[in-house]
Amino acid sequence: MPATLREVAERAGVSVRTVSNVVNDFPQVAPDTRAKVQRALDELGYQPNAVARTLRRGRSGLIALVLPELDVPYFAELTRAVIEQAAAAGYTVVVDQTDGDPVRERELVMRGSRAAMFDGLIFNPLALGDADLRDRPSSTPVVLLGERVVQGGLDHIMVDNVGAAELATRHLIALGRQRIAAIGDQSDESRQTGRLRTQGYQNALRAAGVEVVPELIRPTEFFHRADGAAAMADLLALPDPPDAVFCYNDLLALGALRTILSRGLRVPEDIALVGFDDIEDGRYSTPSLTTIRPDKTQIAKHAVQLLLNRLDGDQSAPAEVPADYDLVVRESTTGISTY
Amino acid sequence: MPATLREVAERAGVSVRTVSNVVNDFPQVAPDTRAKVQRALDELGYQPNAVARTLRRGRSGLIALVLPELDVPYFAELTRAVIEQAAAAGYTVVVDQTDGDPVRERELVMRGSRAAMFDGLIFNPLALGDADLRDRPSSTPVVLLGERVVQGGLDHIMVDNVGAAELATRHLIALGRQRIAAIGDQSDESRQTGRLRTQGYQNALRAAGVEVVPELIRPTEFFHRADGAAAMADLLALPDPPDAVFCYNDLLALGALRTILSRGLRVPEDIALVGFDDIEDGRYSTPSLTTIRPDKTQIAKHAVQLLLNRLDGDQSAPAEVPADYDLVVRESTTGISTY
Repeated sequence: MPATLREVAERAGVSVRTVSNVVNDFPQVAPDTRAKVQRALDELGYQPNAVARTLRRGRSGLIALVLPELDVPYFAELTRAVIEQAAAAGYTVVVDQTDGDPVRERELVMRGSRAAMFDGLIFNPLALGDADLRDRPSSTPVVLLGERVVQGGLDHIMVDNVGAAELATRHLIALGRQRIAAIGDQSDESRQTGRLRTQGYQNALRAAGVEVVPELIRPTEFFHRADGAAAMADLLALPDPPDAVFCYNDLLALGALRTILSRGLRVPEDIALVGFDDIEDGRYSTPSLTTIRPDKTQIAKHAVQLLLNRLDGDQSAPAEVPADYDLVVRESTTGISTY
Repeated sequence: MPATLREVAERAGVSVRTVSNVVNDFPQVAPDTRAKVQRALDELGYQPNAVARTLRRGRSGLIALVLPELDVPYFAELTRAVIEQAAAAGYTVVVDQTDGDPVRERELVMRGSRAAMFDGLIFNPLALGDADLRDRPSSTPVVLLGERVVQGGLDHIMVDNVGAAELATRHLIALGRQRIAAIGDQSDESRQTGRLRTQGYQNALRAAGVEVVPELIRPTEFFHRADGAAAMADLLALPDPPDAVFCYNDLLALGALRTILSRGLRVPEDIALVGFDDIEDGRYSTPSLTTIRPDKTQIAKHAVQLLLNRLDGDQSAPAEVPADYDLVVRESTTGISTY
């Protein structure tokens, strides 16, 4: 049986009202008294009532961050940023990964029961699409990240993938590269990121009068190092290999880099590389990676703010908020300066 | 006002008992009926009662995983393993990062109020020590990871850091290296990991009759790439630089690698490198990293199992469970084979 407030009060030698003040985090309790009560609460295992307190308040103080893969550095870095922004607003972030599994995404986001533990959700879907989210029955506010959903009727923070891919590709064109490959295409309708980045890549080539060569556009199943390494091996096996590659994320680029260097080829002399995400790994690789840097802090800040607005009763139309990005030029396109 | 079971039952056109069965996840409900009830629950915003259900059961189904830094790949990879093991046992993992801040560690682990939301905690402390945890008032079961606490009176899963560091150092000695440096020493009492690995490093040198040179043992504040890069620059500035370095984790090694290569030196010809953790980054760097590989899956499995045992009423003495490890030899010590 869980302890009652009265039992805690007796143990601590204080009034029930004082225990209640501590439980509800009211400020008018002396630190000594608070410590004494907290100790009694803990000793008596006041567990269920912590949950009950949440119930009374109608808020849990928890934001769920639902991401495909925590061990993908982009998501790990984004998670850090979200935790920091949420903490500043007094919220604890609960992180869960879906591996892009539609069943798991649905369970975590769509169903009322689990979602009900959280005041709000920040969700980067890989499997669920517009139609799924339009049918979402729960009333917990959701902010979407990523490109999977374009018309979900929910607040959404996104990077202009077409524009960013154009910027990356234009950089390679400006360096005089003629046979520019792309790694990470995803023709699958459900994978918007790859599709949009291919579109930007092709836009840039066409604008510069460079031919789009289908065999230079390599699809990958995931955006992991292993996918980049394998795709690069395929490109090197072509009769006429590329002299530059735009990889749709840094992990793909780091995998491709590994393949190129292990063949005794040089980056950027033989093949220039551009990535996407600006993860720390790419800043310390040799050569360091030229990459598109989305503003992760800004993404996190907007996401938390949009949730808080909805919790405060904001009923305005769902917002589409663009996140800033820029191109960070490093050694993988401009060469290594040894010192 | 939250909806009642009766309101949900009316909306769904079923009995209150059926709604109750769905809410409690009892199996004897037809899928169609369950879907209908779930929809009604969601539409009516049955939020607080999801929390109330947890209260009735006395379990939340949540395990908290409290780690110093989610964007450190070792912890990200460990998190994935814990989530997988917990999911197999029907538990959801809530991840939180402390940045090793003692206030935050205390808040997340020691205080009853937040801890009470979780059925159990898996905690890798950086700041809290033995004394703190012995005084821990809450009754929620805790499993410790890492080396910070050695006599905490709690279940504990740890890698034999002295033995693993000896193994790494012996490998460099066996390759004929004579001036073997170490990066990551932490003389600070609160940083056991660095201290233990230095001990193993020194043991191996002494056992082989190699002199221990204090200037070759470099302390670092953190175990990040930037720390490794800076420490390596210091080592290269010595009148007699090392011909090998044992770095206390892979991030330090990747930072050191960056510094070495940017000076035009070769790994392993000029300087051999060994890391610790076997993170994916080190498998794709060029050269790939020789490293100590702790069995992360085993660590996760043990941690979840120990928690479940305690939840099932296991009252036996706290367990000290050693995790397996081995040395993975790659190019940073044996050379790059280009093909």
